[in-house]
Amino acid sequence: MKMNESMIEGRNPVIEAIRAGREIEKILVQDGLKDGPVLTIKREAAKREIPIRYMDKERLDQISEIGKHQGVIAYVSAYAYAELDDLFEKAKEKGEDPFFILLDGIEDPHNLGAIIRTANLSGAHGVIIPKNRAASLTATVARTSAGALNYTPVVQVTNLTRTIEDLKKRGLWFVCADMNGTVMYNLNLTGPLGLVIGNEGEGVSRLVREACDMKAAIPMKGDIDSLNASVAAGILAYEVVRQRIGGSNTGK
Amino acid sequence: MKMNESMIEGRNPVIEAIRAGREIEKILVQDGLKDGPVLTIKREAAKREIPIRYMDKERLDQISEIGKHQGVIAYVSAYAYAELDDLFEKAKEKGEDPFFILLDGIEDPHNLGAIIRTANLSGAHGVIIPKNRAASLTATVARTSAGALNYTPVVQVTNLTRTIEDLKKRGLWFVCADMNGTVMYNLNLTGPLGLVIGNEGEGVSRLVREACDMKAAIPMKGDIDSLNASVAAGILAYEVVRQRIGGSNTGK
Repeated sequence: MKMNESMIEGRNPVIEAIRAGREIEKILVQDGLKDGPVLTIKREAAKREIPIRYMDKERLDQISEIGKHQGVIAYVSAYAYAELDDLFEKAKEKGEDPFFILLDGIEDPHNLGAIIRTANLSGAHGVIIPKNRAASLTATVARTSAGALNYTPVVQVTNLTRTIEDLKKRGLWFVCADMNGTVMYNLNLTGPLGLVIGNEGEGVSRLVREACDMKAAIPMKGDIDSLNASVAAGILAYEVVRQRIGGSNTGK
Repeated sequence: MKMNESMIEGRNPVIEAIRAGREIEKILVQDGLKDGPVLTIKREAAKREIPIRYMDKERLDQISEIGKHQGVIAYVSAYAYAELDDLFEKAKEKGEDPFFILLDGIEDPHNLGAIIRTANLSGAHGVIIPKNRAASLTATVARTSAGALNYTPVVQVTNLTRTIEDLKKRGLWFVCADMNGTVMYNLNLTGPLGLVIGNEGEGVSRLVREACDMKAAIPMKGDIDSLNASVAAGILAYEVVRQRIGGSNTGK
């Protein structure tokens, strides 16, 4: 997983980046531009489902780092994404049941980095994130992952619910974090498993929750609503670890 | 934990508060003011990412408590620390064995906030932090705690090792996070307990570690060194919860 520059400015450089298959997170385009190269960028972006944001020239001037945007700035991912098959491959290499962590809209890059770090240490074979409305692999995420991004593959998918349905056909069971679910100690989290963690504010979305086989609750004894998302992910991932290694019940 | 939001009025008092590093939530500035001290306030506020709200003189006059705002009012927040006895009191109220979380030099305010949040939800009766070389209760910590700071008392002590020795005399056992320790499932974490979490980079310091009765390791299956400190705190705190409520071993 290599780190590259994060912003590409100007019409031709952006067109080249798209055509070269670079991972582009989004493209900023100046309001009202309709010339040939800009129309090409819009068409190519649409083909590859790259989101476009429109804004005025002043805003682009502020964002520009080298002052040569010509009305177009693309954000490219700092890190390369993996494919779902890479995750299965990783599980197979280790001779383990697949254990994937799916994030339903984690927005804070610090949380995403911390969860990739947790995924690595809890023995998960990879992390799956959605393309839209979610943090993607940026330099901040890489830094916060404390190196885990070099080992733990991250897959970006268009539709998390559809991915869950596909993975079910490949033998995985799915459990999502849900404060109204069954206390996690009373679920069977061994076997091929996808653990789904929800967005920081909203939790797991309805469609994703409905696609899951089990709903796991972390016991809550306090006065407030919820744990930090990366802490909740850590606690649930380690309940999976405990059940897999057969951690004892009552201490020695 | 009470939040006392207080107000500082007037140009020089506000400049002094900013320079003294007080936690300032926002500054109200009268529309159209452009004199030297006001420009200084704007510049210093921008440097520290303190938000500024502009409003007319009549509105400031209404908000002012002492009628000396000179066009500038700053909101500072002060969070009150608790005493060790408050934590014992809290345990007694709930009829539970004391469960305190001690932080040996957590520096990142986001980690401190997330740990206070975890402390609240895992049923810990309070958090103990050292006075030096550690994050203290700031506005960022309060925000990251998601309200937990209003319920979970935080005590600031001068010497963590001495506090541990004192608390041992009051019946507590101490366990610290230590990757070379005993796997946490094999320790008995029931009974009156202090859970010690180390600094983000260095872990638990030698003197504190030596003062602890047990060293708990989170099982690590991955390629990197360590979990994020607030995630590790969450996993260990919930191992305490699991042992206390008797969470089952192998799922249903």
